[in-house]
This record gives sequence, structure tokens and C-alpha cells, in this order.
Amino acid sequence: MKKLINAVENVVREQLEGMASAHADVLKVSYEPTFIYRADAPVANKVALISGGGSGHEPMHGGFVGKGMLDAACPGEVFTSPTPDQMYAAGSAVNSGAGVLYIVKNYTGDVLNFEAAAEMLAGEGVPVQSILIDDDAAVKDSLYTAGRRGVGATVITEKITGAAAEAGYDLLQCADLCRKVNTSSRSIGVALTSCIVPAAGKPTFDLGDGEFEFGIGIHGEPGRRRLPMASVDEITEMMASAILDDGVYTRTVREWDQARGEWVDKELVNAPLRSGDGVIAFVNSMGGTPVSELYAMYRKLSGLLDARGIRIARNLIGPYITSLEMQGASITLVKVDDEILKFWDAPVLTPGLRWGV
Amino acid sequence: MKKLINAVENVVREQLEGMASAHADVLKVSYEPTFIYRADAPVANKVALISGGGSGHEPMHGGFVGKGMLDAACPGEVFTSPTPDQMYAAGSAVNSGAGVLYIVKNYTGDVLNFEAAAEMLAGEGVPVQSILIDDDAAVKDSLYTAGRRGVGATVITEKITGAAAEAGYDLLQCADLCRKVNTSSRSIGVALTSCIVPAAGKPTFDLGDGEFEFGIGIHGEPGRRRLPMASVDEITEMMASAILDDGVYTRTVREWDQARGEWVDKELVNAPLRSGDGVIAFVNSMGGTPVSELYAMYRKLSGLLDARGIRIARNLIGPYITSLEMQGASITLVKVDDEILKFWDAPVLTPGLRWGV
Repeated sequence: MKKLINAVENVVREQLEGMASAHADVLKVSYEPTFIYRADAPVANKVALISGGGSGHEPMHGGFVGKGMLDAACPGEVFTSPTPDQMYAAGSAVNSGAGVLYIVKNYTGDVLNFEAAAEMLAGEGVPVQSILIDDDAAVKDSLYTAGRRGVGATVITEKITGAAAEAGYDLLQCADLCRKVNTSSRSIGVALTSCIVPAAGKPTFDLGDGEFEFGIGIHGEPGRRRLPMASVDEITEMMASAILDDGVYTRTVREWDQARGEWVDKELVNAPLRSGDGVIAFVNSMGGTPVSELYAMYRKLSGLLDARGIRIARNLIGPYITSLEMQGASITLVKVDDEILKFWDAPVLTPGLRWGV
Repeated sequence: MKKLINAVENVVREQLEGMASAHADVLKVSYEPTFIYRADAPVANKVALISGGGSGHEPMHGGFVGKGMLDAACPGEVFTSPTPDQMYAAGSAVNSGAGVLYIVKNYTGDVLNFEAAAEMLAGEGVPVQSILIDDDAAVKDSLYTAGRRGVGATVITEKITGAAAEAGYDLLQCADLCRKVNTSSRSIGVALTSCIVPAAGKPTFDLGDGEFEFGIGIHGEPGRRRLPMASVDEITEMMASAILDDGVYTRTVREWDQARGEWVDKELVNAPLRSGDGVIAFVNSMGGTPVSELYAMYRKLSGLLDARGIRIARNLIGPYITSLEMQGASITLVKVDDEILKFWDAPVLTPGLRWGV
């Protein structure tokens, strides 16, 4: 294992110290318990957005803390869920009184721990909502999830809901918008190489020189199947089909009902994209794949969407939700409307995503 | 070799088509000959900035075309210099009448070809200046250069000179500023892995599991020496010393003298950083190293600079001048003054670097 690290047990801590030092104008870091938060938090009258999850997916989530996006992020150890006390402490720190929205990727550990934190916060009278992100069209259930995994849509929901919170949306409006972006999103990923978790010291999985993994998760967990290596055009076509030919996806999620003070089951429906739709096309590097190769993927993707009458309204191309140094890429398509586009275009000032300021 | 590519001979062309499709609001691509240029070029009364070099270093240079940075970029094949006809055609296309500034990384092929293009343009009466970037403190001469290589400072000079051109600096003022940024910059890089040039199909060099290359260039050319793998703190300390303990560096460069219509030798002096200086600290991924590891490097670097009384005025952390999927990192320190900071902070709107718009 060759990485730019010191002792394995200090990897996350030292990376956070580097972030705090580099971006002191934007964010601060608490270490006991660990969370990253906006330097100007709590922001008066603004709903506070919080996400979190295992480290190793940078810039997500800590790199998305800042004006127009997250108020706080809770990093676990590499590929390990953060704990409820982190999420609770982050919520307490950044809540201005307008309430807290947790954006939770659908991984069992994250889900359980965010539920515990939401109950703790709610128990103190803090208005709280918790939205589950589950956009990965690759598999129905995975090694670490019941239901679909939360992947690329997380970045998009954080951006759009963050802008809405900045614009004055209240907690329920933010929750509705976040839910809408999630149910408008589908993703698929591929891996060409494994990554190495520092604490493990060896590749998470073995992938031969002549093969790739289709439908990979962001922790190196297995995807749909292992296939002989193919051209970027062929791989992109498989990925686009996995998203575009995915049928209606309906599922029941548990969400916190503030009025009733309990978790309630909610049915969500994700309808396929159709001709005439506009999308945000997000082509993401898993970390080790250079942006030049993402452009080759984007080239094919835009041709395929064009042939189906789907218009790319905006795009995002680069390493935004990664798996350490894994080579591979993911595609997320998000159906847009005027509300989504307005908040996508709104200013954002974070280490990982910045425009308009 | 596993890459997201189609046929090896189409790699650059298809990546450019992807860029053109993704960023049509910012840039366009000409294919015969090949260059990337601002969608709104030529920009009236503005000095036109042009750079270029082998592909494989994305987002540099094509990803830096746009408002506040480059007017055009000329990509060669992967790790291969572009040709004079590309540079000449780009200059003709984007010159508004205010003249053309070529920013040239010191690699022999780039230097010779940009010289030929400058003479062709000048022969037609186009005001032209050509500035050589040579910030790499690793080696005096390298496999591909006489004198020091041009590396990370290229990104910084393109940003700062681009903002100055946008603000109305004339050609000679732009050239002076570009020269100042270059002589205020020093860089050093390390590689943990090789990269694979698509046309070669195998790693450029072999690096054992337990070693890294210190002082690497951006094409996988040898550095100072090969060393046993070390911690990020140790590696960062070596890198910082290579920059900070580098003495006065004086060299003679050839630059185009517009008034005399010929190349003249110019002596440039690069003085070491001292206590009290402020810097832009640029910590760059060679492509395959994730941003999380760059933060560990930044953490150590900021401590080392602090101990020497050198203040980090601004930073840039991420993959900006890369070597395909190579794992490794580089550090560039640029001594700043008010003029440099003002233009660093100015708005920029390119695929690879964006703020303020």
C-alpha cells in the first residue's frame, strides 16, 4: 500500500486538520466528536443541512460544507459510518432554530445512526427531517443496504437543497425538494480497479487486468456483474441503459414526521426519464480516473441522450463522490424542472464545489 | 491497460469532443488544426493568452480556456508537443489586435514549436510575446529540457496573467506580470506510481511497491532519485526543503522582442522565499491521488511554512496539472504581492477553475 498518509489510525484526523487549515474562511472542524461545520454557523433563520458518512469519498461530504450547500458534515473512519453522537452534536451546533435536515445515503449503518440522532434532536424540541438518498439503479439490495444505495444524487441533493435553504425555504419545503431531487435521480457506477482502505492495507477486491465491475458501489462492494474490459463507448452504453431502461421504481422509506413525533413510512415513486425531459448529467470519477477519460464518457453519453430526446440542461464532470484512489466512473442523471435548475445555478462556496462567489 | 477510451488513435480527439459538448457556453474546439478557444473569441481590445502542450495533463490546458484565463490552448497527442501550425492558427483565431501572449512550459518540443509559431505570427505583424515557464526545482536539466521544467507555475501564471489581460493590461504588461509570477514560483513533484500512455499501452516506468520517485516530471521522466516509500510528513518535508532551500536561480531565456523583431536573451533571477513572504500554496494531484491525501500533505506543508515565517495567503488543492492516472503530488509555492493576489482573486470561468462567476 502506497499512500500519502502517516499512521493508519490518524488518516482521517490529519486530513481534516489539513482541510481546516486550508479552508478556515469557509469551515471549521470539531474533533470531539468529529464534524465539519460552516465557519459562520449557525446561520440565522436558515434551515441547517447536515450530511455525513464514511470518509474516503472526498470531496463528499466535508468538501461540500459552506455557503449554499451543507451546514455540517459528519465523517466516519474510512468507509465506516459516523456515530449518532457526531450527528447529534453537529445538529446542535448548526441549528439556528429553523430546524435540521439530515441528508442520509442509504447504507444501513448511516441510516440507523442518523435515525438515532434525529430522535435525540427531536427529543430536545429541535425540528428535524431526515431524507434518504437511494439513487443507485445497479442493484435492488446490496451488501450494505436494504433497497438501493445512495450515491451520486447525494451531491446533487446537497447542492440544490442547500441553495433552497439559503433562499429561505423552511424545513418542510427543504425536505420536499430534497425528496424530489432524489426521486428524480438515477445512477450507475463502474470500477476498473479496486481501492485500498488504509486500515486494511490491501485491495478491497481483486479485479483482473482484462475485466471491470459493472454496477459497483462506492465502498468497493460488488456490483451487478464482472465483465470483460470494454471500450468507453460500450461501457457508457451499458451504463446509460441501466439508467434509462430502469422501470418505475417504487419503495417505502422511513422518514421522520415532525408533527407526529415519530417515524412514518412514505411511498416514493421514481419514474423513468422520457423524451422531452431535461437532465443534470453528472459524470463522476471514482478517484483514480482522470477527468480526460470522463470527457470521453460524457461524449458518448450526450450522444445517447440526444438519440432518446433527452436534453442535458446542466452537467458536472469530475471527482465529487469518490472511493479513495479507485479507477472507475459513475453517471447520475437528474430530471430537472425550473425549481431544480434555479437552485443548481445559485451561488455555492465550498472547497469542493464553487461558483457565483 | 484499462482506461475509459476507445481506439488509442482517437483518444485526444474524442476527449476534446466531450469537452466541446460539455462546455459549449465557454469554449469551442477547432480540429484542423486542433485548438480549443473561448466561445466569445476574439475578445475586443484584450490581449490573447495562449498555452498548450501534450495532452494527458488535464484540466491543463484546455480546461483553463475561458473568461479570466486562456483564450486558446493547443493540445498535442498524449505527452507530445503540439505543432507550430496549431499555435499559429490559435493565435490568428483569438487575436483581437491587442496581441498574443504565448505561455510556454519549458520542454524542448514546446519551446521550439512555440518559437516557430511566434515568428509566423510576428511575420504577419501580430504583436506577440512568448514567456517560458521553468519553475521545477527538482533538476537543472532533464530528459526533455535544457534548464528547469515548467510545471505547476503554469496553472498559476495562466490564472493571474489571464485576469490581468481581462482587466486591460497591454501585451508588454501581461508579459512582465507573467514573467514575474514565473520567477516567483518553485515546484517539486513526487510519483508513487507510473502512468500508462495509451499509445504505449504499458507503464512509462517501473516503481516498486516500496519506493517512490522524488522530483518527478509531468511525463513520467526521471526525477532526482528513487527512494524507499515514506510517510506523507517525511515526503512533504523533503519537498518543502527542495523548494525552500533552493538557492538563487539565475538563467538566460530567449524571449521575443517585438520592437526588434527578433529573439533576445534575457536574464531571469528567482530568489528564495524568506521569512515574512506570503505565498500561494498549490498542492496538486498527479491524477490518481485523491484530494483527501492532498489535505494530509497540505497539513504538514502549512506547519513547515509557518515555522519558517512564510504565510500562506491563498491555496489551491486538487488535480490541476496531472499525468494521466499517475499517483503522486506536487507542491508549487508562488511568492505573492498585491498585484498577484488581486489577479488571483479575480473572477474566472473555465471548466477547470471557476470562481466569482
